[in-house]
Amino acid sequence: MDILVIGSVAFDSVETPFGRGDDVLGGSATYFSTSASFFTGVQLVAVVGEDFPQEPRDFLHSRGVDLTGLQTQPGKTFRWKGEYGYDLSEARTLETHLNVFETFHPVLPESYCDAEFVFLANIDPELQLEVLRQVERPKLIACDTMNFWIDGKREALIRTLGHVDILVINEAEVRQLAQEPNLVKASRAVLGMGPKTLVVKRGEYGVLVFNEHSVFSAPAYPLEEVFDPTGAGDTFAGGFMGYLAATNNLSDATIRKATVFGSVMASFTVEDFSLNRLRQLSWENIEERFRKFQALTAFEGL
Amino acid sequence: MDILVIGSVAFDSVETPFGRGDDVLGGSATYFSTSASFFTGVQLVAVVGEDFPQEPRDFLHSRGVDLTGLQTQPGKTFRWKGEYGYDLSEARTLETHLNVFETFHPVLPESYCDAEFVFLANIDPELQLEVLRQVERPKLIACDTMNFWIDGKREALIRTLGHVDILVINEAEVRQLAQEPNLVKASRAVLGMGPKTLVVKRGEYGVLVFNEHSVFSAPAYPLEEVFDPTGAGDTFAGGFMGYLAATNNLSDATIRKATVFGSVMASFTVEDFSLNRLRQLSWENIEERFRKFQALTAFEGL
Repeated sequence: MDILVIGSVAFDSVETPFGRGDDVLGGSATYFSTSASFFTGVQLVAVVGEDFPQEPRDFLHSRGVDLTGLQTQPGKTFRWKGEYGYDLSEARTLETHLNVFETFHPVLPESYCDAEFVFLANIDPELQLEVLRQVERPKLIACDTMNFWIDGKREALIRTLGHVDILVINEAEVRQLAQEPNLVKASRAVLGMGPKTLVVKRGEYGVLVFNEHSVFSAPAYPLEEVFDPTGAGDTFAGGFMGYLAATNNLSDATIRKATVFGSVMASFTVEDFSLNRLRQLSWENIEERFRKFQALTAFEGL
Repeated sequence: MDILVIGSVAFDSVETPFGRGDDVLGGSATYFSTSASFFTGVQLVAVVGEDFPQEPRDFLHSRGVDLTGLQTQPGKTFRWKGEYGYDLSEARTLETHLNVFETFHPVLPESYCDAEFVFLANIDPELQLEVLRQVERPKLIACDTMNFWIDGKREALIRTLGHVDILVINEAEVRQLAQEPNLVKASRAVLGMGPKTLVVKRGEYGVLVFNEHSVFSAPAYPLEEVFDPTGAGDTFAGGFMGYLAATNNLSDATIRKATVFGSVMASFTVEDFSLNRLRQLSWENIEERFRKFQALTAFEGL
């Protein structure tokens, strides 16, 4: 099954203690699509400005990403500038220029409307709802969000969550959304808002996946060289959704394996700036690191 | 095999958002011994004041802890007062009264000197060295330490580490000891100081275990009710060392399983104040939670 993703395509300027990238390709839909493309086809919905060059279009196309839904609008592409300190756990945003994103309304090409797997990346929950009104009857809807929308568009977000099967968000945001400091209680509360599965991203500490009956914990891969965490969350979501769509299976066992594939993909993204590491990646690299995750977590039972 | 432990026996006054305990039984050697006692015998070395009552002695004795090495000195028992905020990840120390601990020098009873498994809890590294001079030829020496000693007694600590097989410390302290922000690189550097195995405690995020050839990641158990994290690290170490000593085996597979047993024990301690939860614990409870750790981390391979 292909995946429909809506999110941002952007240029990022990022500085970390290990180097910098200026106006490099970024955006949630870009990271998600590239990551998911190792597992399945992707239909992308996003907007760029007239300054958006051909090279990234060719790259995404070469990865099997359908760009029919990528609008080009008069004006400039979304730009984000941020920096990370040594702990790399949180970006400080220095500048955000929404540019063409400011007036963006997603219009799905007719060929996208029967999408079975839908990922609503971290954008205004009202735009997420606009997308949901245009898709017919997806088998699985997943979404991401952030503190900014939890704070500023809480009602619209809660409406979106009523339609969502899987919510993928950061640990602090689960607490913020549920207004509850204990993560397990907060996760239960969020599951009560609609999602059947909650994927809690904890950065370098990995991921916790909650559903009604079970909890799954996957570590992040302990890396010796972390250059730039930008896009790690969206890359995770791409691998996670990519595996679910490729297998067309939503069992607990498949969701666990998808979580590990998502973690594998994210562990590559942070090894270089922008999508540089993903551009070099082979399926053999992915399988090799999946096996390293098995070795990392294995212990004998009672 | 029995384990010799040196550490503190104390009275703690703890306040968390969920309640408070005043002058409750605590101390690293107390938590460690009680936890380890579910797996093997323990020989305790510590000091208390003349105010130390009979009940905790009877309790430790009932758990099979040998108190021959527990000195009673004129003066008061070590007291610590601290509080935790909602995140429960770090205690704020409000008061520390070393009392009889201030002039403590460990003297091992002759019956302890052929100890095969030794745990040096978080105390002055010079006292840790004094203990090592009194034991004949242990099979395994493990130790804990903290920022205070890394900062203030770095040279003595490095000397101690030269004798130690397993170091059990907090994540931030690994970085501090190695003076390196990347955890994997920092862990490599610490392994270069002597220990063959490094156990990195990450609080609610679990544990990473590094040795020359492998890394193992164990989560913490996601708990709905965390009342008081005091003693979690020492309880972890007690379960970890207890299992190693009980099996008398130091293979990578055994160390991994010991890590999970340590995490199981720590997950109980935080469910109540002081040693209250450990006092109620049965072996069946431990096995049941071990199986929950298996369910928490299991995923299908490639």
